[in-house]
Amino acid sequence: MRTVDLPGSPEDALALDAADPIASARDLFAVPEGVVYLDGNSLGPPPRGVFERIDEVLRVEWGSDLVRSWTKHRWIDLPESVGGAIAGLIGADPREVAVADSTSVNIFKLLGAALQLRPGRKVIVSEVENFGTDLYVAEGLAEFLGDQASLRLVDRSQLASALDEDVAVLMLTHVDFRTGALHDMAAWTAAAHDAGALVLWDLAHSAGAVPVDLGGCGADLAVGCGYKYLNGGPGAPAFAYVARRYHGLLQTPLWGWMGHEAPFDFDTGFRPASAVGRLRVGTPPILSLAALECGVAGIAEIGIDALRRKSEALTDLFVALVERECAGHGFELASPREKDRRGSHVSFRHPEGYAIMQALIADGVIGDFRSPDILRFGFAPAYVRFVDVWNAVATLREIMTGGKWDRAEFKERAKVT
Amino acid sequence: MRTVDLPGSPEDALALDAADPIASARDLFAVPEGVVYLDGNSLGPPPRGVFERIDEVLRVEWGSDLVRSWTKHRWIDLPESVGGAIAGLIGADPREVAVADSTSVNIFKLLGAALQLRPGRKVIVSEVENFGTDLYVAEGLAEFLGDQASLRLVDRSQLASALDEDVAVLMLTHVDFRTGALHDMAAWTAAAHDAGALVLWDLAHSAGAVPVDLGGCGADLAVGCGYKYLNGGPGAPAFAYVARRYHGLLQTPLWGWMGHEAPFDFDTGFRPASAVGRLRVGTPPILSLAALECGVAGIAEIGIDALRRKSEALTDLFVALVERECAGHGFELASPREKDRRGSHVSFRHPEGYAIMQALIADGVIGDFRSPDILRFGFAPAYVRFVDVWNAVATLREIMTGGKWDRAEFKERAKVT
Repeated sequence: MRTVDLPGSPEDALALDAADPIASARDLFAVPEGVVYLDGNSLGPPPRGVFERIDEVLRVEWGSDLVRSWTKHRWIDLPESVGGAIAGLIGADPREVAVADSTSVNIFKLLGAALQLRPGRKVIVSEVENFGTDLYVAEGLAEFLGDQASLRLVDRSQLASALDEDVAVLMLTHVDFRTGALHDMAAWTAAAHDAGALVLWDLAHSAGAVPVDLGGCGADLAVGCGYKYLNGGPGAPAFAYVARRYHGLLQTPLWGWMGHEAPFDFDTGFRPASAVGRLRVGTPPILSLAALECGVAGIAEIGIDALRRKSEALTDLFVALVERECAGHGFELASPREKDRRGSHVSFRHPEGYAIMQALIADGVIGDFRSPDILRFGFAPAYVRFVDVWNAVATLREIMTGGKWDRAEFKERAKVT
Repeated sequence: MRTVDLPGSPEDALALDAADPIASARDLFAVPEGVVYLDGNSLGPPPRGVFERIDEVLRVEWGSDLVRSWTKHRWIDLPESVGGAIAGLIGADPREVAVADSTSVNIFKLLGAALQLRPGRKVIVSEVENFGTDLYVAEGLAEFLGDQASLRLVDRSQLASALDEDVAVLMLTHVDFRTGALHDMAAWTAAAHDAGALVLWDLAHSAGAVPVDLGGCGADLAVGCGYKYLNGGPGAPAFAYVARRYHGLLQTPLWGWMGHEAPFDFDTGFRPASAVGRLRVGTPPILSLAALECGVAGIAEIGIDALRRKSEALTDLFVALVERECAGHGFELASPREKDRRGSHVSFRHPEGYAIMQALIADGVIGDFRSPDILRFGFAPAYVRFVDVWNAVATLREIMTGGKWDRAEFKERAKVT
């Protein structure tokens, strides 16, 4: 681990780590040496157990037991058993969560279901700043349904007034992917209900880092991502939540054999499985599900409340250090300053944000850039240390004072940023 | 490997293997010892290269390079690069195939797109005997669209007369999952086109075992499965094909960020990627995609024409041996007798089919049972040997003559059969 001389003391950061009650949790993850990894909100690192577990799935379950593993190793139950483990992190009953498909496909299912549950209402409300895929899914659905559905996109400040008697569902992302700003889940759920609408929460940047109480808030529907703070691996399957009160009523547009009450009867007609089983569509991806199971187990072992306390401390420290050490270099805090109003990442705006982030990555501090000017730093509390915060800021300061970011190689945009 | 004394000579089967030009292809797959695996049409075994490849993905790409692997290891291109490799097996241009989601979800996308491409036509035609998920997806779509779409399900003998001016798309599975009966792709494609409709082929039991010429047949749309004859692992992602002539027009109901022309611009509005890129929806599952890539590479290396020749010989031998050795035990061939009219599996009906299959599995001959009375035996030509056919029939004969199937433990149905 590289440490950099800064005004003040890196020992202070090491002392914070020494006092951290969940410091040992880092050992549950295989974080590479020599980097400060602040992009676990894009892709979490491998949980240590995943290497052995996947080898077992490959050699024993797939390789030796072959098709018999669907029952012998309970592959068939993984979508609901892993969903049940995730439920504990988001304030849901284990029977209210299933793992299936991608976040995008799950949004499609649940928006479709919401329209069905609110007949006569055709409007999906969301905010302009919502994540791309949430908006595209809703836009595609509205286009597909013609005059049976429409998407009403408004600025955050206009959300309350957008909730009228035409609205079937309010779709919000709990933690904003750019700024980390946290919506008040209880308040917006109540506002949607007051308008007679349902609410669909996207927990992409919440699950595994921010305590969520879907049940306590009375939330109706939710989706979330497996490969960010749940550390399920690249493109891990996503999860979906449906409150118990809708289990008998829920009808998504995506009917597949794995959502059938008896898939192996090969009936001509569809009979939906009970509860969240009907959110399943095709055959579940077992390798990816087994990896996700390892990631979720690690987070559950540490405990979501301890994770949140550390996340708040890490992000507070980062904001303070950047503002102290990089003052005068043009950074503007894009995240809420109050820790209880943000998730587990911190963003700063800078007109040269892209080049600065490339220079940081070249120096081993991995955050990411979000167009047009956002430098985004994720502080996954399960494995990010206080000394990582210190070193990240020290590196940023060095890049800014030395002008390193202002080189041609950092300004050329790659296909994927 | 167990051999059983039978009237006739097991050496004859071994001699067939000795003369088999692709006998060595079996070494490309990790088929466990001690079983005769005749269920590769449900789940193919691991390709040998998959263990090392997945370990590399876990430790190097995910573990060490982390989020940078999306570009550094070209994860972002895997849906199209693996799709391109599959294209060579199904008579498509590499740019016409993408890997994404499950077969079920891909059917939904392409049925939705077909309705869009045939405005004014609302009917989806398929046959009652089609696979469960194909029917359920169409049924769910029709239910969701209300009076904008309907599903017309008919017996195979009524398909031609079902194609009228209301039909938007004819959806057929190329190889019947129960009987193995093969549809004439060129003829049905032409029939659909004559009626002004599109055709959507499900290649679940074809890709990797039966030569398919989507381009030569003028097919419009197709989907297929990654975990059967392509050996991509349990729940491997599926593929979808769209003929080049529709690339600029195609509009599916599922718009996600990975199908956007520039996903990382985070535009508010959706702009579809060109060509089959717009079939992508959410973040692709990299572990499962990497495994599928290994499976497809193995099949491509052997060559689809050589595979087909062996498949025909294997299935011919199996039919002849069962009918000779198990005569009088009540088996009725459910598959076409002519090898050019069936795929790579053979099915027999028997009123006690379930119990007989359980007895076979207990004796190491793994086929499967399909309700209500079908014993299904898949002959994946990449690794099934002629001696496996011999031993399977010898075991079946032993079970029937000894009455072993008629025991309570073989008659009790498990949750998944």
